[in-house]
Amino acid sequence: MIKVGIVGATGYTGVELLRLLLPHPNVEVVCITSRGDAGTPIAGLYPNLRGHTDLEFVVPDVEQLAACDAVFFATPHGVAQAMVPSLLDRGVRVIDLSADFRLKDVPLWERWYNQPHGCPERVAESVYGLPEINREQIKNAQLIACPGCYPTSIELGLIPLIEAGVASPKIIANAASGATGAGRQAKVDNLFMEIGDSFKAYASTGHRHLPEIEQEMRGLQSSGQSPLEITFVPHLLPTIRGIHATLYVDVPDRSVDLQKLFEARYADESFVDVMPAGSHPQTRSVKGSNVCRLSVCRPQDRDTVVVMSVIDNLTRGSSGQAIQNLNIMFGLEESAGLTGIALLP
Amino acid sequence: MIKVGIVGATGYTGVELLRLLLPHPNVEVVCITSRGDAGTPIAGLYPNLRGHTDLEFVVPDVEQLAACDAVFFATPHGVAQAMVPSLLDRGVRVIDLSADFRLKDVPLWERWYNQPHGCPERVAESVYGLPEINREQIKNAQLIACPGCYPTSIELGLIPLIEAGVASPKIIANAASGATGAGRQAKVDNLFMEIGDSFKAYASTGHRHLPEIEQEMRGLQSSGQSPLEITFVPHLLPTIRGIHATLYVDVPDRSVDLQKLFEARYADESFVDVMPAGSHPQTRSVKGSNVCRLSVCRPQDRDTVVVMSVIDNLTRGSSGQAIQNLNIMFGLEESAGLTGIALLP
Amino acid sequence: MIKVGIVGATGYTGVELLRLLLPHPNVEVVCITSRGDAGTPIAGLYPNLRGHTDLEFVVPDVEQLAACDAVFFATPHGVAQAMVPSLLDRGVRVIDLSADFRLKDVPLWERWYNQPHGCPERVAESVYGLPEINREQIKNAQLIACPGCYPTSIELGLIPLIEAGVASPKIIANAASGATGAGRQAKVDNLFMEIGDSFKAYASTGHRHLPEIEQEMRGLQSSGQSPLEITFVPHLLPTIRGIHATLYVDVPDRSVDLQKLFEARYADESFVDVMPAGSHPQTRSVKGSNVCRLSVCRPQDRDTVVVMSVIDNLTRGSSGQAIQNLNIMFGLEESAGLTGIALLP
Amino acid sequence: MIKVGIVGATGYTGVELLRLLLPHPNVEVVCITSRGDAGTPIAGLYPNLRGHTDLEFVVPDVEQLAACDAVFFATPHGVAQAMVPSLLDRGVRVIDLSADFRLKDVPLWERWYNQPHGCPERVAESVYGLPEINREQIKNAQLIACPGCYPTSIELGLIPLIEAGVASPKIIANAASGATGAGRQAKVDNLFMEIGDSFKAYASTGHRHLPEIEQEMRGLQSSGQSPLEITFVPHLLPTIRGIHATLYVDVPDRSVDLQKLFEARYADESFVDVMPAGSHPQTRSVKGSNVCRLSVCRPQDRDTVVVMSVIDNLTRGSSGQAIQNLNIMFGLEESAGLTGIALLP
Repeated sequence: MIKVGIVGATGYTGVELLRLLLPHPNVEVVCITSRGDAGTPIAGLYPNLRGHTDLEFVVPDVEQLAACDAVFFATPHGVAQAMVPSLLDRGVRVIDLSADFRLKDVPLWERWYNQPHGCPERVAESVYGLPEINREQIKNAQLIACPGCYPTSIELGLIPLIEAGVASPKIIANAASGATGAGRQAKVDNLFMEIGDSFKAYASTGHRHLPEIEQEMRGLQSSGQSPLEITFVPHLLPTIRGIHATLYVDVPDRSVDLQKLFEARYADESFVDVMPAGSHPQTRSVKGSNVCRLSVCRPQDRDTVVVMSVIDNLTRGSSGQAIQNLNIMFGLEESAGLTGIALLP
Repeated sequence: MIKVGIVGATGYTGVELLRLLLPHPNVEVVCITSRGDAGTPIAGLYPNLRGHTDLEFVVPDVEQLAACDAVFFATPHGVAQAMVPSLLDRGVRVIDLSADFRLKDVPLWERWYNQPHGCPERVAESVYGLPEINREQIKNAQLIACPGCYPTSIELGLIPLIEAGVASPKIIANAASGATGAGRQAKVDNLFMEIGDSFKAYASTGHRHLPEIEQEMRGLQSSGQSPLEITFVPHLLPTIRGIHATLYVDVPDRSVDLQKLFEARYADESFVDVMPAGSHPQTRSVKGSNVCRLSVCRPQDRDTVVVMSVIDNLTRGSSGQAIQNLNIMFGLEESAGLTGIALLP
Repeated sequence: MIKVGIVGATGYTGVELLRLLLPHPNVEVVCITSRGDAGTPIAGLYPNLRGHTDLEFVVPDVEQLAACDAVFFATPHGVAQAMVPSLLDRGVRVIDLSADFRLKDVPLWERWYNQPHGCPERVAESVYGLPEINREQIKNAQLIACPGCYPTSIELGLIPLIEAGVASPKIIANAASGATGAGRQAKVDNLFMEIGDSFKAYASTGHRHLPEIEQEMRGLQSSGQSPLEITFVPHLLPTIRGIHATLYVDVPDRSVDLQKLFEARYADESFVDVMPAGSHPQTRSVKGSNVCRLSVCRPQDRDTVVVMSVIDNLTRGSSGQAIQNLNIMFGLEESAGLTGIALLP
Repeated sequence: MIKVGIVGATGYTGVELLRLLLPHPNVEVVCITSRGDAGTPIAGLYPNLRGHTDLEFVVPDVEQLAACDAVFFATPHGVAQAMVPSLLDRGVRVIDLSADFRLKDVPLWERWYNQPHGCPERVAESVYGLPEINREQIKNAQLIACPGCYPTSIELGLIPLIEAGVASPKIIANAASGATGAGRQAKVDNLFMEIGDSFKAYASTGHRHLPEIEQEMRGLQSSGQSPLEITFVPHLLPTIRGIHATLYVDVPDRSVDLQKLFEARYADESFVDVMPAGSHPQTRSVKGSNVCRLSVCRPQDRDTVVVMSVIDNLTRGSSGQAIQNLNIMFGLEESAGLTGIALLP
């Protein structure tokens, strides 16, 4: 059994990690940390875990965490940067769900996150944990920077078009997320009575997930192409989970068979489902599942192609994908612990 | 008092007309029709009307409707086409909430609605009932084709950019609607357990509101410009009311002061609210109100400008706007009966 | 015009007061206070008010408030107790939406609210503002203690049975409220992701509205009857507004015509709607309206009678009823400003 | 592997059976039937099943079903009655999720379901499938009548009090269900725009689950006690899944330690969780899980005791409990296939 720890397990990505890891056939969760809730059983905070675990939160401690084979960070940005180096030095493998190691360009990170980077010397070795493009590097990585939730849904929708070199450089990524994307924070804006029965865009002038998406998608372009520019506007859905991305990409070449292109690209991927032509993926079809469902069409036979992509922001967009990375790192079945069927209805 | 009738008052736009017309200071509703519910008091169907009216449905009858000064059609497409001519011949003014007279190009209508047009000879005289562009023609019109709900929200967001001639011709209109947009029909797809806690796009390869939007927006272009092409993808929100449109328009000229442009265009419009720069309009801020709220920004100072627009699909997107047209047609205060404040929270 | 002020207008009952008072034909709102938001326009906080008012919050000040004819307190409990005496001394009429003056038994208040009462000497003169039982005293009252939201819905359902002396003393009041009942407070428990798609009871061992309900309902009993004992369990609905009370009352006498009893009791009440036998009132049928809808039945012809009662917690359960009291106090039409039709769908 | 078939798999209980049975370690689903959808892959109807099964619906056929070890009926009432006898005759074990064999009193069944019973001769041998009271009989039963969803939540809350003989005979069962309880039927009443953001009671004068609850709970009374009478009012929640029952039971004896009584009764039950005193179970804490969570309290130290009980109506209230029965019947681990953790948030 692989021994794992979770730093910052009080939040929604923390409890989702536990929902998936407690029944995982090859993993034992040995340590969950929370400075504020030390001594509290996690099942007191999350009643769905009653009867499944007796784990109690402990104060984060490097020595204790160093006894794990792998440690997940489910923390706000800036936290992993402080603790990761000593764990890496002790040979622990780290899977960071936060944004701390996603951007290779440290000054860019510092500008978007408005603080100095706490561990720039480890950025280069971190591997961006999107298995569909980085599976080989993930196998041997010691430090995984898990993709953000929006980026996961958007990148999986763009990869076939960009790798094939058929996309024009100006791309629109219109996306909407369920409220858990905001984390478990007591803020008036996240109250039921503020979000319920309503819909809005937010961060339209610049969301922190934008540089990550551009970094990764530009990395797939052939040399010589003009670098992609993505206009990304996130929206807040009155749902608990789920991200839906609607991508608008100009593909002037009418000879491209979009359906075939997508199906071929993901033929061997167990966690990407290309739906039949004419389908519209629904967020509920992936609730609690690690699958990303996609569909693609060319309306009115014009230049602009539309890709629709859905994930569960807490599963594929965060904790599920982190476990997919763990499985790859430790040579397990990639789908171990991740075979649950989405809860529908 | 202006005497009005409503054909097809059992649906959601019908009850919304009544919610607004029953307290209207200058209007008396004298006749509501429904073939299937004749003899039933409308308050039996819609309990919010209990105590506000004793109106009962009657079978639609031209003679009875001809006694009205104005008749609203809140019917599925194809119905108004059959009854409108005889009412117009009798001098009744008609406000059609359906799609029957929106498209000036009759063969285009027939292709999108997949049936022969029942009254092509009256199409030319109909006036598209968007007061912000057609106020003068509305005053004297005998037949108003009220805009669709999506088109209202999208067109109000595009008008300033297109009239100013600063928009590139390829436009993305990503929009999301509350479930009442689908009407009060017993279909599995509209069940609570199918829509709740989920989100999806639909009709991505072509929604019937597209040709109407392109017709109206092209009509605002200067001669010589390439005709606009709009990629329009609607989405279904788990909310009861509300439309949110997110519009992506390339405006290469950086010298355009977007905020000023929008504020100036709508300075005299009581039902369009340009919000301060940096705002994000929420659908709940217009719940039950006839106001359209807009905001505009230019992310990352790139070519692509983002406009966000919200309306209540049943009020500004349908019944409220129909009454705004009535007010203009009969020389009333344009806001008569429409001054209610949105229900928030 | 009656000049009114609102103390504590940042919360949900505050904005609901403004939604109803700004278009009120006989009222002018001259002053809204908030210590934390002084200088901010209320329309910045509540975008539905944009275009309807330029009012800005001011720091609460007795001199300024004393210039009003009436002052509403939309404050947490304990606040009105401190400011009310000086306003009463200056001849201002006070309508308190909080719990401060509802209980005649001061030690009972102190026990349930766990703090000393700040103004016990004014408790005796306060009038409980439920017009259906206290209309005459309200006319001349200087200090109104508006009923709580749960008590309003429960008491209106019980009054006919208790006044008629047919109810056994042990009563069950099972009630459920939309999330706005919790107020606009940043608490994890009130987040969308905690309340959405879920349901629970709370405060089952004792909710602060219980003593108020028992006080008022016992006041309607004939002398000699055993005092009523009410078991009251509130529940939290994943809705924004609305309270539904389901009342279980033993009425052993089978000869009581329940429907007639209820209809007769409320025949002259414009804000209580007794629905036809067999009806089930829905909370949405009163959304934004001051009406309470009731129905009553006797299942299986057994002893236990069931009464169902719905109100909008922010309108009839709070701000609407407060205005109904204002109208009565100042000799206005009782329904002035309160004739809006509920927003359905 | 145990071979199972499902009759009527197009509904919500059908897809829930598949969600749980496809990964079940000891079961193979060999046949799913639907007259209307024969030839359609189930994953076309329920996209969450894409990639998990290639099963297609077939027309129900006794010979084919007779090749199964067990057959589930997930059909409307009246259907199982017609097909069950021939399956029983061929030695197949039948687990009926419908109401067809729940009531031992056939004329009572016929009165509540308003049709003649199609198979009265098999009623006597059917076993009511609530494992917590009938585990031994289930082991050898050939025909299981699975409890209704409301009865499951209500009975599990009442059992400790009734078995202990401490409950007075008049009981109130106030319950609320998510919308999936109504099944996947195209009815206006079940539309999102009718149910969303609202709440109501229904069937207050008599719901079909009442006689079943009274039959089972009376069966637990000691001889000589007055037969229980339950007033049961169901309500419709704007949630997808979940039932919450609030039970009001007079327990005059103050010496009863309620917490201990409940904990002792369910000490050995893996699918009943008695929460700590003072807890309030939430429906979301059992979403997708087979667990029933309970809590009990005595407000104001009065006679009336309150029990709160939550289940997922599709899992413990239907398909999950049916599988729990299957496991018992075939000597498997009782929790096989049912160990998934509830999806929270």
